[in-house]
Amino acid sequence: MKKEILFITGNTKKVEEVKSITGLEVLAKNLDIPEIQSLSVEEVAEAKALSAFKLVGAPVIVDDTGMSIDSLNGLPGALVAWFLDNLKPEGILKILGDEKNRKASVCTCIGYADESGVYTFTGTIKGEVSKSFRGENGFGYDPIFIPEGYDKTYAEMTSDEKNEISMRKIALLKFKEFMESRG
Amino acid sequence: MKKEILFITGNTKKVEEVKSITGLEVLAKNLDIPEIQSLSVEEVAEAKALSAFKLVGAPVIVDDTGMSIDSLNGLPGALVAWFLDNLKPEGILKILGDEKNRKASVCTCIGYADESGVYTFTGTIKGEVSKSFRGENGFGYDPIFIPEGYDKTYAEMTSDEKNEISMRKIALLKFKEFMESRG
Repeated sequence: MKKEILFITGNTKKVEEVKSITGLEVLAKNLDIPEIQSLSVEEVAEAKALSAFKLVGAPVIVDDTGMSIDSLNGLPGALVAWFLDNLKPEGILKILGDEKNRKASVCTCIGYADESGVYTFTGTIKGEVSKSFRGENGFGYDPIFIPEGYDKTYAEMTSDEKNEISMRKIALLKFKEFMESRG
Repeated sequence: MKKEILFITGNTKKVEEVKSITGLEVLAKNLDIPEIQSLSVEEVAEAKALSAFKLVGAPVIVDDTGMSIDSLNGLPGALVAWFLDNLKPEGILKILGDEKNRKASVCTCIGYADESGVYTFTGTIKGEVSKSFRGENGFGYDPIFIPEGYDKTYAEMTSDEKNEISMRKIALLKFKEFMESRG
């Protein structure tokens, strides 16, 4: 029998994605666990996975997403939700102004903890911040992020196109490999 | 005999200030306690005081400082250290650009926890973000914050002038009053 893993999230779509990519038995568990202050998604995911594991006493998955903007010296990083909630994507464009260096990257980190310790798996997509708000799909920073090698923002892509360049998928494949290597 | 309180900080100057303003017996205790993600200094201080109290099992004080900028919809708030570390005060001026609304406030929150619960005491000073970096005293946002009713940044003031308009002092006086009311 496969061992069940609890994914600490309120988003059941994420759980389906983890199951479909990793083939693991994953159940959603909605727990409110405060995130620590850090720009690093690895640090946030690690602390959260450890807290969750202490709380539920079973293997847990957590995830965290970040956006690092070069000209902001890596901000907002793992604090991106506070930027999006308070500034909206339009406000992020506004604070960048006419800055020439638009380089940025987005990443998702999967944190996993069980009795043997805590592990993190990160997928990163490089790209740039667009000069204007573009597209109607997706959410969060999707309308202002253009992945490297593309000329569309995430919000201008279909779900299928976006899934082809998914940092979450990269992170989940690393996690899958780790779990398989442990047998 | 007065009951000793542990101030969770690595800054002994802060401990002297608390003793001098409140008259309480306070000892420094240097503990690394992660801060939670929030714009609210009260939420951060409350969580930190609770964590510290659980850890040391004695009455504890923690403090947290924030800066809320109107045109950034309250950002960075309690996340101000990340802005200062990564953008420097000059970078905060840069992201504000030629924004007309310079309104901002700075605050310090004292969190106190003991066996009876957790309490927070906040001092806030209104003012504005200067248009340029001004002054050489102080640290942090001092060179870019002008308190209401003044035409100098904190960094252009002497320590004595700055202490007259100290949000930390306001918070500590509230805390003192609370402690005295409990006898």
